[in-house]
Amino acid sequence: MTNLDEMEYNGLLDLEGAELCGDLEERNPPISLPNQSSDGALLAVDIGGTLIKLVYFEGNEDAMSHGRATGGQLRFVKFQTSRLDECLEFIRLNRLLYGRGLDTGSTSLNVKFKATGGGAFKFADVFKEKFGVSLDKLDEMDTVVTGANFLLKKIPNESFTCMHGKRTPVVVSQQNLFPYLLVNIGSGVSMIKVMGNRKFERVTGTHIGGGTMFGLAKLLTGCTRYDDFLQLSQQGDNLVLDLIVKDICGELVCLKQGLSASTLASSFGKVLSSRRKLSDYKAEDLATTLLSAFTYNIAQVIYSFIYP
Amino acid sequence: MTNLDEMEYNGLLDLEGAELCGDLEERNPPISLPNQSSDGALLAVDIGGTLIKLVYFEGNEDAMSHGRATGGQLRFVKFQTSRLDECLEFIRLNRLLYGRGLDTGSTSLNVKFKATGGGAFKFADVFKEKFGVSLDKLDEMDTVVTGANFLLKKIPNESFTCMHGKRTPVVVSQQNLFPYLLVNIGSGVSMIKVMGNRKFERVTGTHIGGGTMFGLAKLLTGCTRYDDFLQLSQQGDNLVLDLIVKDICGELVCLKQGLSASTLASSFGKVLSSRRKLSDYKAEDLATTLLSAFTYNIAQVIYSFIYP
Repeated sequence: MTNLDEMEYNGLLDLEGAELCGDLEERNPPISLPNQSSDGALLAVDIGGTLIKLVYFEGNEDAMSHGRATGGQLRFVKFQTSRLDECLEFIRLNRLLYGRGLDTGSTSLNVKFKATGGGAFKFADVFKEKFGVSLDKLDEMDTVVTGANFLLKKIPNESFTCMHGKRTPVVVSQQNLFPYLLVNIGSGVSMIKVMGNRKFERVTGTHIGGGTMFGLAKLLTGCTRYDDFLQLSQQGDNLVLDLIVKDICGELVCLKQGLSASTLASSFGKVLSSRRKLSDYKAEDLATTLLSAFTYNIAQVIYSFIYP
Repeated sequence: MTNLDEMEYNGLLDLEGAELCGDLEERNPPISLPNQSSDGALLAVDIGGTLIKLVYFEGNEDAMSHGRATGGQLRFVKFQTSRLDECLEFIRLNRLLYGRGLDTGSTSLNVKFKATGGGAFKFADVFKEKFGVSLDKLDEMDTVVTGANFLLKKIPNESFTCMHGKRTPVVVSQQNLFPYLLVNIGSGVSMIKVMGNRKFERVTGTHIGGGTMFGLAKLLTGCTRYDDFLQLSQQGDNLVLDLIVKDICGELVCLKQGLSASTLASSFGKVLSSRRKLSDYKAEDLATTLLSAFTYNIAQVIYSFIYP
């Protein structure tokens, strides 16, 4: 996420009337910015350990053709960090650094190229060589918080709960927004207590994050795309591999003792007593078990932290 | 672990002079009880989701032959819960329920058979059918705490740290023993705040425990014995699969920014950017990565809990 505050402050971004547009059930629906000028280019990038995330402004075709140079969408695209070349090619083809109709290669224009993430340091030279631009490296935590505040404050439908694939909007009270806990799940996980704009503290984190879940998914199921993994995980049954309280005590005892029979006792715990080997398990069941193991774990690390 | 307090209180156990004996580097060294009577049998059992743990008293051969019916060892043995039959056969062959030299099958003797764990409920009928004994089911948490207090108070060398396979004894102050946090790692994990004998509270736990680690180890490496997994994990290199801060930022940036280059950022995170599949990885490296992922996670859940 980019440092929107700074860009707004500097007159680069006009956030008035910002709203989600397109299909809300899409993974990454664009954000409409009806008053944003199409002059110049607006691109920002976050280069993490696993993914490169781009956000850029794309002016409306009709606005352009009618001579009105305002209105368009903030668009979100991601690439695997290991495929940096694809990302660079996307930037070049879409002229994201130099604006529409302007020549690639000229560096005298109003080029803004904010960048966050460890990769912004690691790959700075690559961008310099390829495009002749320097990355303006911003503090990652600061920009994540600013981006979250922007979404919570200005884009109502960006706040929702999701249950069985169904989104339910959450109304965010602007009076009681702070403090909140921002859980930023990347390869690893950072947990940030947000008290206001630019007022935040990284309170904890965990090395068991998206990288662990998808890394194990690649090894166990052979799937190589994250979206495939998510789809698999929606079709499986975690009780094939997970040990629940009922498995240890028997159902009758749970009833008698008032124990919750379905409480997860040990993720993957049923594998121990089974003679099955990896190839005997369905990819769907493995994916579902991984998803519940690590999402519950992240929730627990947070919960332990908030309610000791 | 068995309810030693109760057994001591009831005159069944004489703990005076109790100490570790045999090779201290053994996984489960016996505890010498020099004043314990060899009359009758002393057996207790914990039947968990993964393992059955037995503790029993074995009188000294020489004490027996010299007519002195005192002295012997508390011995510890474990079986996989899925192989209950092997455990039952061990109990039968060693006459653990009826004492030495006494006939199997007689139930009129002073048989004490304390049991804990979910399996004590689930398999109660099996023990009744096979041996004609009822299991005296004790509260698991209560017995774990009593057992830990027993070890901490009466067996000096049972308290140690372990670094690179080397044990360093910890001197436990009897004045400042309480409160302490007992982390009981089974298939899942329970964390218990211990304030004294029979004074304790289960404060938290996690479903990511021994069952998760060894379950995944079975799937990823094909090893079927826990001891094999532990041995593998001592020979591998977790940096083949784990993503550390240096991998994301580059080493120079870590130096410049004062970041710890070797901090674990994402367990298994390096798998994402690799083209290797499961069979391309060494079992040792997979085992080491699993061990560090889940032991660190348990430590973190505890730490978040204690130092919010």
